Amino acid sequence: MSVTASDVGTQVLERVRGALGDASLDAVVASSREALIYTAGAVPPSLRTVRQRLAASIVPVSGETEAIVVSVDAPLMRERMWVDRVTDYVEFEKHPMEVTADALRRQGLDGGRVGVELTALSVEAYGVLQRALPKAELVPVDELLADLRVVKTPAEIDAIRRIGKAAQEIAASACRSVDAGDTERDLGNAISEAFAAAGGDELTMLVVGAGERSSHPNAPPTNRKLERGDVVRLDVIGTSAGYHCDVARTAVVGEPSDEVTKVYELLESVHERALAAVKPGVQSEDVYRIYREAMEEAKLPPYHFVGHGLGITLHEEPFVHAKTSVPLEPGMVLCIEPLTMIEGRFGVQIEDELIVTDDGCELITRASGLLPIGR
Amino acid sequence: MSVTASDVGTQVLERVRGALGDASLDAVVASSREALIYTAGAVPPSLRTVRQRLAASIVPVSGETEAIVVSVDAPLMRERMWVDRVTDYVEFEKHPMEVTADALRRQGLDGGRVGVELTALSVEAYGVLQRALPKAELVPVDELLADLRVVKTPAEIDAIRRIGKAAQEIAASACRSVDAGDTERDLGNAISEAFAAAGGDELTMLVVGAGERSSHPNAPPTNRKLERGDVVRLDVIGTSAGYHCDVARTAVVGEPSDEVTKVYELLESVHERALAAVKPGVQSEDVYRIYREAMEEAKLPPYHFVGHGLGITLHEEPFVHAKTSVPLEPGMVLCIEPLTMIEGRFGVQIEDELIVTDDGCELITRASGLLPIGR
Repeated sequence: MSVTASDVGTQVLERVRGALGDASLDAVVASSREALIYTAGAVPPSLRTVRQRLAASIVPVSGETEAIVVSVDAPLMRERMWVDRVTDYVEFEKHPMEVTADALRRQGLDGGRVGVELTALSVEAYGVLQRALPKAELVPVDELLADLRVVKTPAEIDAIRRIGKAAQEIAASACRSVDAGDTERDLGNAISEAFAAAGGDELTMLVVGAGERSSHPNAPPTNRKLERGDVVRLDVIGTSAGYHCDVARTAVVGEPSDEVTKVYELLESVHERALAAVKPGVQSEDVYRIYREAMEEAKLPPYHFVGHGLGITLHEEPFVHAKTSVPLEPGMVLCIEPLTMIEGRFGVQIEDELIVTDDGCELITRASGLLPIGR
Repeated sequence: MSVTASDVGTQVLERVRGALGDASLDAVVASSREALIYTAGAVPPSLRTVRQRLAASIVPVSGETEAIVVSVDAPLMRERMWVDRVTDYVEFEKHPMEVTADALRRQGLDGGRVGVELTALSVEAYGVLQRALPKAELVPVDELLADLRVVKTPAEIDAIRRIGKAAQEIAASACRSVDAGDTERDLGNAISEAFAAAGGDELTMLVVGAGERSSHPNAPPTNRKLERGDVVRLDVIGTSAGYHCDVARTAVVGEPSDEVTKVYELLESVHERALAAVKPGVQSEDVYRIYREAMEEAKLPPYHFVGHGLGITLHEEPFVHAKTSVPLEPGMVLCIEPLTMIEGRFGVQIEDELIVTDDGCELITRASGLLPIGR
């Protein structure tokens, strides 16, 4: 049974079908988490817990969309996916790629040009699909799909804006709910609870690092106690309806030292200059260059990147670094996240989300100084 | 810098090296989550959040063990992995599989027989590794690694026992903490908090389905309110130090109806008969057959499987179904989980963890009736 297509689905499917036509493809078989969410609206829970329970979403250039999912996930996926048909397979009975091949055959696509994701399909799964579709031409579509996702549809932007604003508020209110003597984990639990209450699906990665741990790049919350004077680095990374938020804040327990205040203010000025550089037509590497120059002026060591696209995946094009470059376009969603780590002592980070608009950018979130804990 | 090898690491490495020797392999390159945890003791957080940040763990039959991880995860991995060396790579500078090839070359293994996981390596990553190691013979080791993990070492069993017992207690106490009028999510939050406090890493999947949702196979907690008479199906699935727990319980809000009591008692008798069948030398398919016969006698529809191995992954060999069979051996860890779903009305499940011992089994957890909510 099909579910009424959501706004996100309607807008995305039109774009995917247009791109398939342009690339002379008859269909795409999406199998990565992000391509499943993009083309079908949801991802089976089993894909995370049981690796062999592969899923696929078939989008033909015309005709029925169809998802292939393991039977235990089928009821939930029939509620959440917007595809025309959800076909389930029983584990161990038939390989999911054989079921996918059968579905293509039913629509007469087994002799066509079929797009597949070579960075997502395992050597084993690809082999099964290839043997089951001897007449098809399997064409890599990793870049085609990634490129499509760079500029968001209006419905996607609404989804990202909603959970991004929630993440900003959650970080601030969680800091207000704890005090010296509480642990990183208490702060983490406050964030987790509020995130679920705000309609978040899951925190894909939560950083709560206090004191010297604020200088560790990906520090999960531990039982370390918060002490007066500790810098606490928070990064709220999660999803809601398949779309990510990624908002980092720096907090201080009690009053910040002069050194912490100074480093924060320097980084804040760097952040402002990078944000001011974001507008359509500007190259992403130019935003990075402006960041790097501002860091050098502030006498802070520049990091190898300062931002990234945000959407179904946490890090996607456009990457804001010196290694690749794309011109910014309206509808792109970016995180700008300068950080500086004084190894073994403390780390400071400011990360905001923004949407590139016709004449600049709209900030989804906006940091306003060090967050207070226990004062 | 290497970390002192933990007990788990010492025992596991010895087994892996023995198996490499038996298979005439010079080294294995582990790249799946489970093989990274098994051979190196931890998995980089980025592997979940940013798909292109591949990681690898190299175990040579003799010589240094080494892990390849993205630079942002390196500090945490140097704390948590027990390998001799953690080598980091900067994203976008070099492909992680090229860095892996360099590491093999440094140990003179680039012309050897090197095991790789074809169900985990993408077509793209495999291609990069193959081109970077033109003289090596890449040999599939998916089964070799999965088979090794079936019988647990004593240190692994300790890890599984600890978090399994915690999960059982958490399910019961979370039920005591809520009442009619609270939501599935409130119950889920109580479980999440207690799980983190018990030293859990993350709940990889949490099922909290009330009323008709208790009959949905993988139902995540929602804002649905708990009502008097609701059956609530809980499944606490998470990890601690890399090892899984998987404990399912059925609860009732207020007094259970006669029908619910009867179905539960029937399923309980099926569960007892399946548990009693577990001992060394018995075929896993025979445990399934005994379950199926008990279900038929109870006039409940048998499910296509009733249990699975548990360890670093949630579902692993031995699977307790009719499609494959292995003789049970001491040191295997199993979940036995009969369930019955009365579609659209309610679902009942009882899942316990056990260790196969020399003369039967040790129950890590043991359900004792319907859990009470609000009474």
